Amino acid sequence: MMSEGGENAPNFAGAGGLLPAIAQDAHSGQVLMLAWMNAEAYEETLRTGRAVYYSRSRQKLWRKGEESGHAQQVEAVYVDCDADTILLRVRQTGAACHEGYPTCFFREVTPQGFKVVQDRLVDPASVYKS
Amino acid sequence: MMSEGGENAPNFAGAGGLLPAIAQDAHSGQVLMLAWMNAEAYEETLRTGRAVYYSRSRQKLWRKGEESGHAQQVEAVYVDCDADTILLRVRQTGAACHEGYPTCFFREVTPQGFKVVQDRLVDPASVYKS
Repeated sequence: MMSEGGENAPNFAGAGGLLPAIAQDAHSGQVLMLAWMNAEAYEETLRTGRAVYYSRSRQKLWRKGEESGHAQQVEAVYVDCDADTILLRVRQTGAACHEGYPTCFFREVTPQGFKVVQDRLVDPASVYKS
Repeated sequence: MMSEGGENAPNFAGAGGLLPAIAQDAHSGQVLMLAWMNAEAYEETLRTGRAVYYSRSRQKLWRKGEESGHAQQVEAVYVDCDADTILLRVRQTGAACHEGYPTCFFREVTPQGFKVVQDRLVDPASVYKS
């Protein structure tokens, strides 16, 4: 799908192997989530056009939607000025958040404390097995 | 400005002290940059309504715009589902990127390599001394 490498390429080595990757909804502009990529996840994302991250908790590649079906089709990839953050513009199927919300940023900090500012799209119990 | 703490509060301790913070333009929805916050930066951001980060290279608080004048007025703060990423919606003065571009994500990954897809707003040499 897209080329890799070159002086502006993400500097995974300089960051101990993992860089933050932001997924933004290509249609609404909403910031959906932040996850992590290693070089393999990045390359597979470019090659397949589907967002692939690296799960720090599971310590393996995480093909977004592999369990939930809530995959992300990648429309564009950007690398920041310091080559240490990746931005994906994606078409999100279903809910980006494992809690069933459209985005992971469904809690706003307000003077009265944290406030849920989105409606759940799906019941997580219906999406994930145990 | 806003309250802190509680079970949904950013878990700085769990991340070794620093969490990624995404700044999004409140008006255009553009993702401007990703930087890092420690608890002190987060608290000062909430208290003052101006984006304050922690500079990993300089190892100190970075009051965005303190040198460049390109400050960020914070309109809303969100914490993600895992309490390990912060999202700011901001009003950006000038260029978010130290290279003079509106956002730090001015390089797109294309089949022909990296392509600059934004126009420079300002000449960095006119903004930063030395």
